[in-house]
Amino acid sequence: MTLPTPRSFRDHLRAVARANDSWLCVGLDPDVRLAPDVFRDQPADEWVPRVMGGIVEATADLVCCYKPNLAFYEALGPRGWEILLEVLRQVPDGIPIIADAKRGDIAHTARAYAEAIFDGLGCDAVTVSPYLGGDSLEPFFDYPDKGVFVLCKTSNPGSGDLQNLLLQGGDGLEPLYRVVARTALTWDRHGALGLVVGATYPEELASIRAVAPDVPILVPGVGPQAGDLEAAVRSGADARGEQVILNASRAVAYASHGSDWQEAGRAAAQRLRARINAARQRVGAGL
Amino acid sequence: MTLPTPRSFRDHLRAVARANDSWLCVGLDPDVRLAPDVFRDQPADEWVPRVMGGIVEATADLVCCYKPNLAFYEALGPRGWEILLEVLRQVPDGIPIIADAKRGDIAHTARAYAEAIFDGLGCDAVTVSPYLGGDSLEPFFDYPDKGVFVLCKTSNPGSGDLQNLLLQGGDGLEPLYRVVARTALTWDRHGALGLVVGATYPEELASIRAVAPDVPILVPGVGPQAGDLEAAVRSGADARGEQVILNASRAVAYASHGSDWQEAGRAAAQRLRARINAARQRVGAGL
Repeated sequence: MTLPTPRSFRDHLRAVARANDSWLCVGLDPDVRLAPDVFRDQPADEWVPRVMGGIVEATADLVCCYKPNLAFYEALGPRGWEILLEVLRQVPDGIPIIADAKRGDIAHTARAYAEAIFDGLGCDAVTVSPYLGGDSLEPFFDYPDKGVFVLCKTSNPGSGDLQNLLLQGGDGLEPLYRVVARTALTWDRHGALGLVVGATYPEELASIRAVAPDVPILVPGVGPQAGDLEAAVRSGADARGEQVILNASRAVAYASHGSDWQEAGRAAAQRLRARINAARQRVGAGL
Repeated sequence: MTLPTPRSFRDHLRAVARANDSWLCVGLDPDVRLAPDVFRDQPADEWVPRVMGGIVEATADLVCCYKPNLAFYEALGPRGWEILLEVLRQVPDGIPIIADAKRGDIAHTARAYAEAIFDGLGCDAVTVSPYLGGDSLEPFFDYPDKGVFVLCKTSNPGSGDLQNLLLQGGDGLEPLYRVVARTALTWDRHGALGLVVGATYPEELASIRAVAPDVPILVPGVGPQAGDLEAAVRSGADARGEQVILNASRAVAYASHGSDWQEAGRAAAQRLRARINAARQRVGAGL
């Protein structure tokens, strides 16, 4: 697949989503408890590049991006980052990689994280936490061609503990997650901003899309239920019916424990893409 | 130094603070731009264990704990975690290590981070972000003998962007950072909780200590100004005049660029400990 050199991460992502006709992001998260049986007794530096690379090989024409979560590589031990780099080297040129890192630290330190993820690993985008405020994210936003996905409303049950707290805003009470979405827009200088909103909260997703009409939204937690998926497509699509990234991790990477793990991963990605595209058709989004 | 086997991180920290008569935490953050001149041209896997280990050797009787910030190891490249492990192996048994990681992710993923930091690296405590809510931190709080420092009010200028937002509480408007402190107390089951409050905000520190009277508070950003330090001691001490951890990173680890870097690091740690202890004396805290 040959793509024009993209100017911003947003354009880059949109170009691949169109070329592969896909809003599907595949998570590349090594977990030995879920690995195909034939790899169970192998050390991580053998099975992880083989399996994650095999999933990339089987799905590269079906996705708009890949998303490794750094936690699962760090849990492999001190060689985890080297193993991650071996996995990333197998992603074909041009397909964006979102480092799911959820980092957030004061500026001096955030710069070290940005260098580690953008320069060291060569990732195209990163997930970050908003809790430390705008100056803490400047080192990420400084990269004109990278994407910065700010956590907004996460998919977990406890996400409401802080994210749903109500603040006095211009037009009455407003939940923190929407204040975060509005504030994050002011931190973005190069069109680098994305937001993270869990598929488990379609109403919140719609409310966030209303205040951030133009940014890509990464939606983790797309379950096996077609309803969730359709709600995410309807609530998440921007005015042009685009810019939603629906992430599936285990459903693709560990679709089978048998020797057919690679074919099963491809089949799972094909089914998910087809379900997403059917939902797009029904809600008139981007098709 | 022989210490009794501690039950909780809090007891562990208190025992070392008393044994070394110190509230000083030394940050172990590799930055080649600040390294002693003789190490400037060496690869990271040579100079970092040598310099950070040398600083540990020079200060182990002067601190209550060490705090490596993971960002600076990740910025060293894919071998960063292995280099970190080499540094940590040089910390004498019994001195607590706080992994400054500021992690926060949904529970399944947070467990991988907890395993990486507590089991893989063998650290005694970790800094975490509260933004994802209580369930996201359970995997950290599940370890009965580890410490979990929740970000509360950070030292950077932009920390107010979210942390100072006002919420309607039981007795009027309350800033988010204090809601976080109160809420984090409810997440703690084993006395594992600590809070992070920047030295740049002594009033906020006092207000947080008022709602969390019994937890250790990690105070980064202690500058060269004696005022800040005394304010942090006064505002941070608990009812027994204890449980404040004052972190200095560059001031100790990079006290000199010359060949006297190790002696200079020790002298800087001695001066800081003396200034902290003088401030404790003046405010009647723990002496």
